[in-house]
Amino acid sequence: MLENLPIWFWLAPIGAVTTLVVAITFYLSVIKKPEGTPLMIEISQAVRVGAMAYLGRQYRVIAIVFLGLFVVFLVMALAGMQNIIVPFTFLVGGLFSGITGYFGMRTATSANARTAQAASQSLNDGLLVAFRAGAVMGLSVVGLALLNIVLLFLGLVIFVPESFWHGDAITQITSIILASSVGASTMALFARVGGGIYTKAADVGADLVGKVEANIPEDDPRNPAVIADNVGDNVGDVAGMGADLYESYAGAIAAAMALGVSAVAAKGLGMQLQYLVLPLAIAGMGAILSVVGMFFVKTEEGASMGQIIRALDTGIQIAAAGVAVLALPLIWLMGIPNFFGLWLTIVIGLAVGIIIGWATEMFTSGDHKPTQTIVAQGETGPATVIIQGLAVGMESTMIPVITVGLGLLLSYVVAGGLNQPLMGLYGISLAAVGMLSTLGITLATDAYGPIADNAGGNAEMAGLPPEVRQRTDELDAVGNTTAAIGKGFAIGSAALTAMALLAAYVDQIRFSMHHLLNQKVVELGGEQVALATATIANLSEYFDLTLFNPSLIAGLFVGAMTVFYFSALTMSAVGRAAGAMVQEVRRQFKEMPGIMEGTTKPDYARCVEISTAGAQQEMIVPSLLAISIPVIMGLLFGAAGVIGLLAGALSTGFVMAVMMANAGGAWDNAKKLVEKSGKKGTPLHKAVVVGDTVGDPFKDTSGPSLNILIKLMSMVSVIFAALTASVGTHGLLGQFFSLLF
Amino acid sequence: MLENLPIWFWLAPIGAVTTLVVAITFYLSVIKKPEGTPLMIEISQAVRVGAMAYLGRQYRVIAIVFLGLFVVFLVMALAGMQNIIVPFTFLVGGLFSGITGYFGMRTATSANARTAQAASQSLNDGLLVAFRAGAVMGLSVVGLALLNIVLLFLGLVIFVPESFWHGDAITQITSIILASSVGASTMALFARVGGGIYTKAADVGADLVGKVEANIPEDDPRNPAVIADNVGDNVGDVAGMGADLYESYAGAIAAAMALGVSAVAAKGLGMQLQYLVLPLAIAGMGAILSVVGMFFVKTEEGASMGQIIRALDTGIQIAAAGVAVLALPLIWLMGIPNFFGLWLTIVIGLAVGIIIGWATEMFTSGDHKPTQTIVAQGETGPATVIIQGLAVGMESTMIPVITVGLGLLLSYVVAGGLNQPLMGLYGISLAAVGMLSTLGITLATDAYGPIADNAGGNAEMAGLPPEVRQRTDELDAVGNTTAAIGKGFAIGSAALTAMALLAAYVDQIRFSMHHLLNQKVVELGGEQVALATATIANLSEYFDLTLFNPSLIAGLFVGAMTVFYFSALTMSAVGRAAGAMVQEVRRQFKEMPGIMEGTTKPDYARCVEISTAGAQQEMIVPSLLAISIPVIMGLLFGAAGVIGLLAGALSTGFVMAVMMANAGGAWDNAKKLVEKSGKKGTPLHKAVVVGDTVGDPFKDTSGPSLNILIKLMSMVSVIFAALTASVGTHGLLGQFFSLLF
Repeated sequence: MLENLPIWFWLAPIGAVTTLVVAITFYLSVIKKPEGTPLMIEISQAVRVGAMAYLGRQYRVIAIVFLGLFVVFLVMALAGMQNIIVPFTFLVGGLFSGITGYFGMRTATSANARTAQAASQSLNDGLLVAFRAGAVMGLSVVGLALLNIVLLFLGLVIFVPESFWHGDAITQITSIILASSVGASTMALFARVGGGIYTKAADVGADLVGKVEANIPEDDPRNPAVIADNVGDNVGDVAGMGADLYESYAGAIAAAMALGVSAVAAKGLGMQLQYLVLPLAIAGMGAILSVVGMFFVKTEEGASMGQIIRALDTGIQIAAAGVAVLALPLIWLMGIPNFFGLWLTIVIGLAVGIIIGWATEMFTSGDHKPTQTIVAQGETGPATVIIQGLAVGMESTMIPVITVGLGLLLSYVVAGGLNQPLMGLYGISLAAVGMLSTLGITLATDAYGPIADNAGGNAEMAGLPPEVRQRTDELDAVGNTTAAIGKGFAIGSAALTAMALLAAYVDQIRFSMHHLLNQKVVELGGEQVALATATIANLSEYFDLTLFNPSLIAGLFVGAMTVFYFSALTMSAVGRAAGAMVQEVRRQFKEMPGIMEGTTKPDYARCVEISTAGAQQEMIVPSLLAISIPVIMGLLFGAAGVIGLLAGALSTGFVMAVMMANAGGAWDNAKKLVEKSGKKGTPLHKAVVVGDTVGDPFKDTSGPSLNILIKLMSMVSVIFAALTASVGTHGLLGQFFSLLF
Repeated sequence: MLENLPIWFWLAPIGAVTTLVVAITFYLSVIKKPEGTPLMIEISQAVRVGAMAYLGRQYRVIAIVFLGLFVVFLVMALAGMQNIIVPFTFLVGGLFSGITGYFGMRTATSANARTAQAASQSLNDGLLVAFRAGAVMGLSVVGLALLNIVLLFLGLVIFVPESFWHGDAITQITSIILASSVGASTMALFARVGGGIYTKAADVGADLVGKVEANIPEDDPRNPAVIADNVGDNVGDVAGMGADLYESYAGAIAAAMALGVSAVAAKGLGMQLQYLVLPLAIAGMGAILSVVGMFFVKTEEGASMGQIIRALDTGIQIAAAGVAVLALPLIWLMGIPNFFGLWLTIVIGLAVGIIIGWATEMFTSGDHKPTQTIVAQGETGPATVIIQGLAVGMESTMIPVITVGLGLLLSYVVAGGLNQPLMGLYGISLAAVGMLSTLGITLATDAYGPIADNAGGNAEMAGLPPEVRQRTDELDAVGNTTAAIGKGFAIGSAALTAMALLAAYVDQIRFSMHHLLNQKVVELGGEQVALATATIANLSEYFDLTLFNPSLIAGLFVGAMTVFYFSALTMSAVGRAAGAMVQEVRRQFKEMPGIMEGTTKPDYARCVEISTAGAQQEMIVPSLLAISIPVIMGLLFGAAGVIGLLAGALSTGFVMAVMMANAGGAWDNAKKLVEKSGKKGTPLHKAVVVGDTVGDPFKDTSGPSLNILIKLMSMVSVIFAALTASVGTHGLLGQFFSLLF
């Protein structure tokens, strides 16, 4: 197979190595910067130790889950329901994602004091340190995800003997690669849910007692939860976000590879390899262009917020324009027939991401009307703030939904889906790859925000002069805007990728059914082959997904419900964990009166410990729910039930994720608007603070976890497809009832 | 056709006449009761005049909308895209629903002072007056809806000449009857949305200024919004709820008739008529049994709340058990082959309604844990109350969803759907009819609540002795529980009926396409018939609703989004209308200082006027949105897009409606729990009041409107099926893009 591999394949490893080399260079350049005063170093170290301790514990918990799933997959493989390689690649997928999180966090937590120190020199210095540290995360995600896929592919092609595959090796290879990204998705769900609970428990706990009850400012070193709060920014917004986009990126590429191979199955291995390589080549090119874009990010002293945003935007735009322009000759040179149509899918993907980012900005920024209406409703108290915020969040779903809907249809059509549905689905998955191709730099601008935020905390706690805090605040404020753009990409790509995964699931069910029936033919012997063939014809039942099928509709309902139930679990988890934190902070203030006088050092470590334990404990149930529902649904309702489940979870989950992210963002900025206008402490301010607190789990825990939920459920379904196929067309329930009637 | 009509058909007209006669009797018996002191009469009259004035204005606005839609349907009929009878039956459907609302409201508003007066005699007297007045609403809905369908059916069979139909008269007749219930649904949407906005604007306005700012108790006659608040209970909870369940009931029966005729299309007219008559016979029998059950509702003086609930429950249980038991011999006597299976669907329907009602009670009553957790979270302020309430609402969706999912699958299977899908869908629609068969009495216990509530208001304003208020409070508290059961039926039946309507839509699209293609065959002449036949084969594309179709997925997304967007519109409408009310009440307190001293009478009429105008204005946009989205979707994305839209709106809408109803109920009862424990005025109380205020539009405006939204969208799609079919398989967008690529 290797000899047929198009040369453009090597863009992917080149991109991976380039980004990783640049990431290491950036890391070293950040590390070389001075870390400031001994106090700054001490604070920074406390945050780093807390963050790394959290990550260590999280990985230990996840390791147990991975071990459990590994055993399940192994049993399935031994029972002939799964390829024997899958359990191992599942572990590898999780491992790569874990390494990325470790590396990104290490850098981010090393960068906060250094950013504060650099900001005490100049704004540009501060920007560069924070941005480069963020870039380490962005580039590690891209580089390691690409490396994982490339190594896996080459390993399977080179080291596994041809005889192992029993024919059609390429389809099996892509489906193994797809299954390996389940590892990354599982990792991401735990990281997002756990990190989200951690950061909000610490944030809410620190605010409720510190700001509201004890009346001390944000980031005051007398607040026992202050270190936990800073640790939370790292574990939630850096590690969680990184794992989230790692799985989006890896999943989108793997799905596109698998669909490409299916789409041209009739045209032979040569063509299949070209379609397999195309997403890899686009991703490799995008990785390199992301690095190029990064060198355009700089600003001057005294730059306005607008100028800083423009500096970051310039980098992103150069990378995106580069992908859009260079993809056309690339695809053409690859000799792919419908090169213009497939190029358009890449452009559509980029456009969808940009439009969603813009809509997010429209609905959440304090400069626009939606957020201002929330402030206006604050005059009549917190209840109207909540109602208006929910309404704004719900209204904000229209543009993203229409954009994604049109994006789906358009990329399907231009790829040729009207004549060849599988090619249309390949087009959709390419759009997702296109959207995420510049992830290296968009994620860099995203991860930069929490680093600047933490630098501000460090400056405050270390008592640096106010102009330093002012500079870090400026950098941080920009981070909020770029985070909105980042969320647009995360949500938009989740919708497109989940759609592609849904198609991959249908493919996998078809494959499993054929396999089962072939076995049956062998068992029965020649005589009854006709009978078995008739059963094979019935396969179409699986694809006859009309609404005449109550299993499908039941699945749709359960899918929509899963989104609501999962959100309920994560939201109330934050409430419980925050409650424990509130009690601990109150206890410390009460038992150690020296804290408020500044004579006793609060027990920071205990708060870090509480957040860590709370997050670990609370992340288990929602995560296991997400993994087990598709399996249960498949066993009880059969494949149609699973397809309904995935479609229901995808549509409701996407809309809900947008709603939660935007309502949370709008509440946050409504509060900031009121604070900016100098109305701190007024009833209006109290009303909008209630909105902001409700918005916290919306935008940082439940909302972003939904992106992963919808993809992980699809991937789990793919892995368990053979099991689902084995219980027959209508599932165990259907079998049971058909015995009765 | 009349000669083939099974004799059991006549159960429907007998049921209709019986319920209407009993309704009139109850009305007269209520009217005969003394209305109390002159002050009580004056207050009661003010509420009645306000409510009737609102209804009059609402009907005028709706009349314009109906006229507009009538013209659209007429144009479509003249263009050959719709039966010419449909525009007229559409008007008739709306008219019948309107008469029901008028009659029910007239009774309810006449009953409140009389209930207060009767309660001053004894608890049982109060219960009987309120319950009988509520029964007038319940029985009118059932009687008039049945009468409408029966008269329409007989009219079409007797007066329309056989030649008019060009063959297959029965299918066309049932599809006309189905279309006529669009009139009822349109009416219901406006009544629910308008009534919901009215009642919550008045409620929130009265509470925010009266209770919170001026510190006067609920229902204090010094509050200028107090009459508007009482009017609101009637227009929202009586007229709105009545119109809502009228459309559920009529829609469920009409859908079952249409699906029954399709299911046995191959077996000839005789069998078709039997399947058509079955839902009518069940409904007629249920109507009569509802009346029987009503005579078992009575209690003794000094009865506890539990005893009153038991009194109401006994009535409901007798009716439900009667239907469950008698349906078996009925179906058997009708000579329907699978009589046992079809009987089971009726039982399943009743069981689903009861389980959902029970789950609603579990999650919203103050006696159970979910609501208590909201109170517990109130210790840390309003934000955690909101988060916990949302979490409780979201968690509460699990049982209803699983129940409906299993109910769908079960009723499909027992009806024989595994071998004959259309028969399975008929089973699902029969389950909906079974669930709603005892609507006469369940709606009576539902409408009774607001009457008791208003009686309490009347007693308070008229200064009756405290024991009267205590009795009416007791009756009112029971009303909250029965309302939960009523909501279970409304939501559960909406899900089942919407599923049946979805199937009816697919049927209609198939019919329209055949019609179009037959025309083409005639145009082309014999030579090209082969070509046209090939196109007919392509019809299957419409039913090939795999997830390979991006239009379907885009539709799913838009459907989920529509639910969110519609909720946003109705929630913010309440906010705006309440804001206007707040300003008016503040103005009156300021400009007329005599009000607070009790020397000046507030300008009640002005507040009634403001609520009325606000509701009228705000109900237009969301309602028109609901009607236009399926049409736009059909034109742009074709039939698959519409099917996706309906499935997405159905699944998300059902889950969202349950969430909103239960979160709102739980917040309401959490507040009541705190008040009962004597903690009024504490920070805890303030926190839970915020929850209650957010819950108001959830449970009384947005949530219940969603039930109607999902059905109305299906029905509008059915009416516009021919138009959708005319734009081709992929809609105008698909056509446009396929020209380009």
